[in-house]
Amino acid sequence: MNRLSLNQKTVNACTLPEAVAACVRAGVPSIGVWREPLHEVGVAAGAALITDAGLRVSSLCRGGFFTAPDRAEVLADNRHAIDETAALAADCLVLVVGGLPEGSRDLPAARARVADVLAELVPYAADHGVRLALEPMHPLYCADRGVLSTLGQALDLAEPHDPAVVGVVVDTFHVWWDPDVERQIARAAGRIASFQVCDWITPLPADTLLARGVMGDGHIDFRRLGGLVAKAGYTGDVEVEIFNADLWREDPDVVLARVVSRYAEHVVL
Amino acid sequence: MNRLSLNQKTVNACTLPEAVAACVRAGVPSIGVWREPLHEVGVAAGAALITDAGLRVSSLCRGGFFTAPDRAEVLADNRHAIDETAALAADCLVLVVGGLPEGSRDLPAARARVADVLAELVPYAADHGVRLALEPMHPLYCADRGVLSTLGQALDLAEPHDPAVVGVVVDTFHVWWDPDVERQIARAAGRIASFQVCDWITPLPADTLLARGVMGDGHIDFRRLGGLVAKAGYTGDVEVEIFNADLWREDPDVVLARVVSRYAEHVVL
Repeated sequence: MNRLSLNQKTVNACTLPEAVAACVRAGVPSIGVWREPLHEVGVAAGAALITDAGLRVSSLCRGGFFTAPDRAEVLADNRHAIDETAALAADCLVLVVGGLPEGSRDLPAARARVADVLAELVPYAADHGVRLALEPMHPLYCADRGVLSTLGQALDLAEPHDPAVVGVVVDTFHVWWDPDVERQIARAAGRIASFQVCDWITPLPADTLLARGVMGDGHIDFRRLGGLVAKAGYTGDVEVEIFNADLWREDPDVVLARVVSRYAEHVVL
Repeated sequence: MNRLSLNQKTVNACTLPEAVAACVRAGVPSIGVWREPLHEVGVAAGAALITDAGLRVSSLCRGGFFTAPDRAEVLADNRHAIDETAALAADCLVLVVGGLPEGSRDLPAARARVADVLAELVPYAADHGVRLALEPMHPLYCADRGVLSTLGQALDLAEPHDPAVVGVVVDTFHVWWDPDVERQIARAAGRIASFQVCDWITPLPADTLLARGVMGDGHIDFRRLGGLVAKAGYTGDVEVEIFNADLWREDPDVVLARVVSRYAEHVVL
């Protein structure tokens, strides 16, 4: 349990104080925070609340959306997110890079833009002691959420930058299918900023954004992927992040209890 | 138009004679045949019908499902499919390799089994002058349809075998997101047995099996992918294969007319 982190999205109906309290009750020592509920309580108050509760912050979710048309706005918002990450002393800022711009079919151009905006943000992150975490997303989301589709591609993108400033997220939902995953996780040694877990369930729920399952409900071999991540030297938190509308209707304490028991059964190494 | 082929699935409500007649009326010179409607009319009668109409057969869909538990049944069914491919003088037999076996989370084992069953079928295909076409499927389908997830993986699987007997399918829907697609299509030179087109539309329809769009309705750059396939030396038919429940309710002649005009606008090189 000492490496388990609850990503706030798993208990999406909770405010930040409610999610923190639920973690404390369940004995979960770490939390992945989302910016919107953080803004509701204020960054300083949120940081104090988490510190007072004795929790670590495994990540702040999220920056990114680098492919949006207004570059100045994108940069400004990501600088705010970097400030917030520093204020929380979070392990990393998770970046979802964004999909194809409206009306565009030029995927190589969108990917080039991601590299370009990232390079512009890196010095600001370095100055603030913040680690950016590039999240490769399942190819399912390539058009509308993230043109960063594989761990290999994320590592290529990270390569020119200091690993202390640009890392990657390994999220089981996004990478489990990848025939190259073993080689790429090994290659990610020193770059893994976050390890997130949730399951791939079938049939895929109609809303693909909320299509994720609790560990054990689907097809992912967590011990295999966790073993690869451990072998690559990752010793950080293991964050449970589950977007699922059915789960969000349940009592948070019941959800937390299930997360804890499934983590013990399927994930913990 | 001289390279355009209608995959029968695009007009799923039609019998084989109806699909053939629709191709003739629309001036489409080639057809991709599915086994179930072929069986309805009988293989010999179906072959005669297509030949009499002056159409080519760009593919027979489909063999595969190598991960199913009864290996003897899998082999027998695929040998039948090979016989039928030879009877139609089709350019290839498309193979959808199958997902994870029921209850299994062992993806490497499922993939090893695919390689193993393929090797057992190759001599039979060679004896019958049939080219097997491994179809990498979008990672969306990894759990339940096809553990073959990238073109690179398909080429690794094909590599030990004669390119005349084991080729690959490049289907835009399945490969468009792949950051490695340029390099892998180049590597596929001499192995491309089929080039299939349809679009990736968002939001993804609720039934992911029927989530494909007509070219121009989505996010795929067909000229880029078609250009890469042409550069790799592919000179065969371009098959339009669209699984879409809305399309299936339309008049087949209307569908064909749209396919022809969208092909001209978005695909033809």
